[in-house]
Amino acid sequence: MSDDAAPAPLLHAIVPAGGAGTRLWPLSRRAAPKFLLDLTGTGRTLLQQTFDRLQQLTGGAITVVTGTAHADAVRTQLPALGAEAVLAEPSPRDSMAAIGLAAAVLLRRHGDVVVGSFAADHVVRDGAAFERAVREAVTVARAGYVVTIGIEPDHPSSAFGYIHAGEPIGIPDDGAPTARAVRGFTEKPDTATATAYLATGEYRWNAGMFVARARVLLEHLAAERPALHAGLTAIADAWDTPARPEVLDRVWPTLEKVAIDHAIAEPVAARGGVAVVPAAMGWDDVGDFAGLAGLVPEVGHVRVLGDAADVLTFDADGTLVVPAGGRTVAVLGIRDAVVVDTPDALLVTTREHAQRVKQVVENLGGRDHLR
Amino acid sequence: MSDDAAPAPLLHAIVPAGGAGTRLWPLSRRAAPKFLLDLTGTGRTLLQQTFDRLQQLTGGAITVVTGTAHADAVRTQLPALGAEAVLAEPSPRDSMAAIGLAAAVLLRRHGDVVVGSFAADHVVRDGAAFERAVREAVTVARAGYVVTIGIEPDHPSSAFGYIHAGEPIGIPDDGAPTARAVRGFTEKPDTATATAYLATGEYRWNAGMFVARARVLLEHLAAERPALHAGLTAIADAWDTPARPEVLDRVWPTLEKVAIDHAIAEPVAARGGVAVVPAAMGWDDVGDFAGLAGLVPEVGHVRVLGDAADVLTFDADGTLVVPAGGRTVAVLGIRDAVVVDTPDALLVTTREHAQRVKQVVENLGGRDHLR
Repeated sequence: MSDDAAPAPLLHAIVPAGGAGTRLWPLSRRAAPKFLLDLTGTGRTLLQQTFDRLQQLTGGAITVVTGTAHADAVRTQLPALGAEAVLAEPSPRDSMAAIGLAAAVLLRRHGDVVVGSFAADHVVRDGAAFERAVREAVTVARAGYVVTIGIEPDHPSSAFGYIHAGEPIGIPDDGAPTARAVRGFTEKPDTATATAYLATGEYRWNAGMFVARARVLLEHLAAERPALHAGLTAIADAWDTPARPEVLDRVWPTLEKVAIDHAIAEPVAARGGVAVVPAAMGWDDVGDFAGLAGLVPEVGHVRVLGDAADVLTFDADGTLVVPAGGRTVAVLGIRDAVVVDTPDALLVTTREHAQRVKQVVENLGGRDHLR
Repeated sequence: MSDDAAPAPLLHAIVPAGGAGTRLWPLSRRAAPKFLLDLTGTGRTLLQQTFDRLQQLTGGAITVVTGTAHADAVRTQLPALGAEAVLAEPSPRDSMAAIGLAAAVLLRRHGDVVVGSFAADHVVRDGAAFERAVREAVTVARAGYVVTIGIEPDHPSSAFGYIHAGEPIGIPDDGAPTARAVRGFTEKPDTATATAYLATGEYRWNAGMFVARARVLLEHLAAERPALHAGLTAIADAWDTPARPEVLDRVWPTLEKVAIDHAIAEPVAARGGVAVVPAAMGWDDVGDFAGLAGLVPEVGHVRVLGDAADVLTFDADGTLVVPAGGRTVAVLGIRDAVVVDTPDALLVTTREHAQRVKQVVENLGGRDHLR
């Protein structure tokens, strides 16, 4: 199969739109997860910003993989997407199943195109740097690599995984001046380890952006996780046929839950098959309110996501206020506070404790309507 | 004039019910000031608790002086009060005008009875100790003194005025074993001065409780503030007549704004005419949220004024939460926080900054509906 009259896109983007964003509670909820929210005050949700960022590169060849519960919301937020461009997962099976399904479906629809996965709930402030990196990644992917885009770290974060870059790789037509072979991936390190990583200059943050030819990706999957590959193959074969519901119902629940990092990136890197394109693009995974604080407008010495007229602060430098409850919020004498006001739930904490918000959600008990 | 069949009460209580309670914003508002609120989670407002406390001592002879804006609310909260027992002030003229008016009206209605002023927005936890102190104060008042009840300080507060007690006074029938002459009153001292006061054992907190014969009080007023006395006399003469509205409208706005402490207590003390009955009664003026925190139920290591089921806290020892907005409130990682959630305004601060809440109210700007 191949595309019709339109020029073939540089790459087909796969946007896994999942994840609860639990650490952004009470803003992010089961019914309105992080990617469906405007978390930067731009008027566009994170999903919409992701779409906007990929539009030019892909000519609209964007496939969103999301849970059935959110498929309608995704279609509403992205009216330009064709009906078949939203793949609805019956249940969450982690990133390998989501990306693998999309790659397998795209292979059947468009042949051995280059695909790239880009999370629906991250922020990229420098779109031009993002585009340059993706273009280089596509060049490297065409040569047969699985390519990850490695974010230049600006502090020794213990919240991200790291990519260890090795020697530059040689691409015949010199279209990949910065790409390097990947020596390995590491899980979130402690701060001391992260500091040591940064000192070497060889480490980049893993932002979960993977670019590869669809066939390359699926061949690695077949080699590394044959059962998962077989299941996804069965589903993809049925996807654009009347058999889809039956096959999906039967096979999907049996798929292994595993991240693409573990299923493919790590083992393939060990064999020299993964490259990294480093990039400084103002990336943020908006992982918690401390991260969010850096992304929203500063009003005085305070960050406000929402209407600044609803916020009054006194000696509260560094505070983040989200006045989403329609009320006036006053903060007095707490620095780096985080106050998130919604119509049915209020969170008060500090940036320092932002990573622990998950603990609140885990202890909501019978308050199921607040999840 | 004198009372009819009912036995004459020990004293007639005068309850000035005014004061915005600005430091308790957003709980306390112009339309719903502190005295009209249940601030201790007992189901009774501070005004109602004051009434309850005085009921036994006065046999119901309680007169409330309040602003016209709150007269209806006072009557609603205290249905046992007779229609004439609420004196409505056209505008606030400070405590001397309020108490002086009530004393003058009571003198005309009941003769030279003992009157006692008790603020509508204070808390007394030991009702028996309060009653003992008032009974002794009445005995001393009958002998012609202006008597204040002096609260035994339990810490060197800089938030209260102090009473300097002198020698014991001799009352013929020995009905006043603890009363002492007052050497003087002092304004709110700094903490160092307050500490020095406490070391002497001679100082008590001034809780604004004054007990005296109505005629004694008014004679002191005539001597110290003749114009104010003349104005109040004119109004009291007209109070229970059809001339009241006209006289009140004409004279009330001309009255001097002065506290009873300055108008009577201080100068009369200098002449040896004031006595103090010391008392430890678990008194609190509920001046700010730090004070309030000590008065509401403890749930775990947190204080909650409201439904504890609406509150979730983690590492937030000493925190006060007022979940009055109908929402779930989560506090994470802030000790001694103060979170006051109401339907239209939210305050987030700490006990340390509780005194500064006034600053928030002063900066509400155009948000007049929140005052």
